[in-house]
Amino acid sequence: MFLKVSRFSVGLRALWWCLVLLNACGTGAKATAYPYTVYRGTFVHFPRLNSSLSKPELARKQGVLWVSSGDGRIKGYDWQVRDDSSFQSFLSRHGWTDADVTTNDNAGPSAKVKVVESVDERNEFFFPGFIDTHIHAPQFPNTGLFGSAGLLDWLNEYTFPLEASFGSKSDPNNQETDPKDTPPEGLRVYDQVVARTLAHGTTCASYFATIHVPATNALAALCHSRGQRAFIGRVCMDNRDQSPPYYVDQSADEGLNATKSTIDYIRALDPKGALINPIITPRFAPSCSIHSLTGLGKLAASYNPPLRIQTHISETTEEIDLVHQLFPEATSYADVYDKAHLLTSRTILAHGVHLTHNERTLIRERGSKVSHCPASNSALGSGLAPIRIMLDEGLTVGLGTDVSGGYSPSILEAARQACLVSRLLGYSTDFQEMTGNSTSTGHEKLSVEESLYLATRGGAAVVDMADDIGGFDKGMIWDAQLIELGAVNNNTVSPSDVAGVHGFAGRILVKSGPVGNVNLFGNETWQEQIQKWMWSGDDRNVKNVWVQGKLVHTRN
Amino acid sequence: MFLKVSRFSVGLRALWWCLVLLNACGTGAKATAYPYTVYRGTFVHFPRLNSSLSKPELARKQGVLWVSSGDGRIKGYDWQVRDDSSFQSFLSRHGWTDADVTTNDNAGPSAKVKVVESVDERNEFFFPGFIDTHIHAPQFPNTGLFGSAGLLDWLNEYTFPLEASFGSKSDPNNQETDPKDTPPEGLRVYDQVVARTLAHGTTCASYFATIHVPATNALAALCHSRGQRAFIGRVCMDNRDQSPPYYVDQSADEGLNATKSTIDYIRALDPKGALINPIITPRFAPSCSIHSLTGLGKLAASYNPPLRIQTHISETTEEIDLVHQLFPEATSYADVYDKAHLLTSRTILAHGVHLTHNERTLIRERGSKVSHCPASNSALGSGLAPIRIMLDEGLTVGLGTDVSGGYSPSILEAARQACLVSRLLGYSTDFQEMTGNSTSTGHEKLSVEESLYLATRGGAAVVDMADDIGGFDKGMIWDAQLIELGAVNNNTVSPSDVAGVHGFAGRILVKSGPVGNVNLFGNETWQEQIQKWMWSGDDRNVKNVWVQGKLVHTRN
Repeated sequence: MFLKVSRFSVGLRALWWCLVLLNACGTGAKATAYPYTVYRGTFVHFPRLNSSLSKPELARKQGVLWVSSGDGRIKGYDWQVRDDSSFQSFLSRHGWTDADVTTNDNAGPSAKVKVVESVDERNEFFFPGFIDTHIHAPQFPNTGLFGSAGLLDWLNEYTFPLEASFGSKSDPNNQETDPKDTPPEGLRVYDQVVARTLAHGTTCASYFATIHVPATNALAALCHSRGQRAFIGRVCMDNRDQSPPYYVDQSADEGLNATKSTIDYIRALDPKGALINPIITPRFAPSCSIHSLTGLGKLAASYNPPLRIQTHISETTEEIDLVHQLFPEATSYADVYDKAHLLTSRTILAHGVHLTHNERTLIRERGSKVSHCPASNSALGSGLAPIRIMLDEGLTVGLGTDVSGGYSPSILEAARQACLVSRLLGYSTDFQEMTGNSTSTGHEKLSVEESLYLATRGGAAVVDMADDIGGFDKGMIWDAQLIELGAVNNNTVSPSDVAGVHGFAGRILVKSGPVGNVNLFGNETWQEQIQKWMWSGDDRNVKNVWVQGKLVHTRN
Repeated sequence: MFLKVSRFSVGLRALWWCLVLLNACGTGAKATAYPYTVYRGTFVHFPRLNSSLSKPELARKQGVLWVSSGDGRIKGYDWQVRDDSSFQSFLSRHGWTDADVTTNDNAGPSAKVKVVESVDERNEFFFPGFIDTHIHAPQFPNTGLFGSAGLLDWLNEYTFPLEASFGSKSDPNNQETDPKDTPPEGLRVYDQVVARTLAHGTTCASYFATIHVPATNALAALCHSRGQRAFIGRVCMDNRDQSPPYYVDQSADEGLNATKSTIDYIRALDPKGALINPIITPRFAPSCSIHSLTGLGKLAASYNPPLRIQTHISETTEEIDLVHQLFPEATSYADVYDKAHLLTSRTILAHGVHLTHNERTLIRERGSKVSHCPASNSALGSGLAPIRIMLDEGLTVGLGTDVSGGYSPSILEAARQACLVSRLLGYSTDFQEMTGNSTSTGHEKLSVEESLYLATRGGAAVVDMADDIGGFDKGMIWDAQLIELGAVNNNTVSPSDVAGVHGFAGRILVKSGPVGNVNLFGNETWQEQIQKWMWSGDDRNVKNVWVQGKLVHTRN
């Protein structure tokens, strides 16, 4: 599973300098020609809920919404603007002209604005960008590869060897800090994971990197260069009994220093944290000494505001047994983190499949958040997370792909799996014991709307950006995707067309109709169109992606 | 949910005559220019297992395999042929020349053959076509739409209204038999479902149609025209208490006559049953009177060999309760079918999620087969089918999409879901009770290889064609797909390319590398490539599809 490093070493320095140069003229530069971009067409999002007990309802608006190029935020909208005439009036009222339209009249001093439209005939709509609250960037090459057994074997067989390959061969003790010491294979993997997640509509991701400072810094630089909002965590793991000898922090203190080094790098890269922010990342309790956990808790708290924290919790029962064995003084897995002051209101806890009631209560009291990773939990056989119970108890939940425990970099796939798992949850012994019902009431099932809420607003709350991303409220940042479902088949094809195509056996009937696997027949409500998208959509339906008002992905 | 019919009625006759004409020059005509097609490259399939207890192992061969244009069967292979030189020798030995290569020498009388190659650099390989053992063709427009509750509500809210729309408005009593009386919207849906399933690599499908004779015949004609191997079943449902008044057979006898009429049509369309065959299709026990069930059992047995039969069984616990209520004299759901002589060695039982041990024993004794539909069972919340127990007990199992209870027309997705569900099965109360283990042993998990075996060899056995399709043995029919995983990224891109692409923010790094979502990094074993395909592949990876040696789909 080790990446082959040697063959590319000759181009290593060249590659790094290219990245550095490109970063210099990347998202940091605000040399946009237009003060505003006006988005025109159909907008679908969820109004923000005040309580996790409330049922999310999709809202669909048609009209215009404008975003400042200066800060990438939504400055206003007008749902009265529908036809071309009212659109021209709207532009005139604001003293704007469409930069792409050449006009003959010199009607005084008007500012040119960029206009981006969704096309009704293609069933296009703007939707908030997806937020991946848990993803391991270095594990991307292992996507779709699983060991023969569960989590702990898979870590040793597939994950640790791959992650270790992100270290520099010339630096066996992980002393380097310079990002240009990242193996070029690692740079390529990181570049691809950012490109691929953007292509699936992920505008914000909370990344686990590896233990290596140079590669962690390089991931931050690549996200910055490509314009993806990201939280970047150097993985801390100093427990030599639970880590492979080739992939472990030399000591708790050296791990803390290495983490500080990545924080310094990221804060230099993006001083205001507009796009990229560091996140404290103990791998999980079994990988860390108490000294390391406590030190990381203190490190997070030493910043103002305190740094975000991410780790794993209660993914599998074997792991929980191990934690009880390693931390006999703790009353629970969650208590291990709490004693180290790692359960904060800015903490993301991945999985939480087997949390006890007391643990959930503690997590809610601390305001920590849960990243639900259903594709991973099913693929690794970790279990069925009782999301409905968490929501009923007031926990904040978002979705994570958990690449490569999860087999897909798509949050849409995570939403689909969240629905599927919730519909099997009623058959689980643990859930029946928790609820006292031996038959399902159906209450535990997540609707399409709930899953998509978790993928957007839920994720925004999990990464502590609920006021900024995940929806289209005025003042929020334009982190968005343009979804194209494609044309309705039946309305655009006449019987003679069908006959004509039939002359060529093996051709698809309607080439220009559907996009990917979403098939519209013209009699769906708009809510049903969204359902079809969640159940059958993929990256083919993601036409454009913007982060902070900037276009960062266009479908080929 | 009704399809809008009126607007297209003007082109109805024209559309039907196009289909009729095209059928006349469709797959029936064997005017192929070459006596053989030689497939050259990489072939992956499963050797046939003698026992459902054995573990399937993928076999990979490189060389050539040739197929007769006359009967579409594999006439031989040669795994010694590797390079161009040995390929030329191979052609010479057989007295063949490549029809696409112009040669200057007139080297005596040689037969021209068609040569089809898989490309190693694109990680292409030939794989047996998928077999969908359970799919409802008319429900395709509802793919991705689910009611708010489980199976029985979903039938009434979504399914029955849509299926009813396949009847002729001018024939409210369902007396017509002529396929040209099918509403044109119905023709379009059927044409699309055949095109779409072919595009996903489904070379053989066992279709439920509707109760309407014209539309059922039209589905048969369309499959015949497009060249997809199919079993076509007119749905029988005469229980007025359990069917909507607008969608029910007028009586058991009228239903039997209607079914006979479709059988006659299909046998006239394809007298030898080379591609299209009728299949007796009682919807499920609750929809049918005892008179109807018994009549259908007799009807199937009246043919030589007896006709195939398909129906549903034990999909949900509510349905099972209903069967016990409706058939108090039967000892079990399976016993209802057995008493009507519907449990034969050519019977496909869809779902079987909640079968009892006695029922499984009865089904095994009768030699009936099980169609496992995991995507549907999860999406509708029907439950977790204990496939490992069925295999351990010697049942024959294949996969079904169950469109539109299943949200995808892809058997690859069904294979993925079969793996996922099997990894959650150990948490189910029912499974724990069946096995007597409160913790999973892991034995219940299906491997990637097992799921793909069910998708090919398993499905072939379920449709009683184990000697003919599902693998690449000599003498078997060439029902196959060419899978393209795409190029390895890292081996084809130099650091300077990375830098060049980086100059354009928002572009995908490697445009020409991966196909769809399968990402290869060059260090995978070929088995791991197959795993990545199963976990991340989709219709983008299906480059070509052949049925009975004939090319029936080429990716756009």
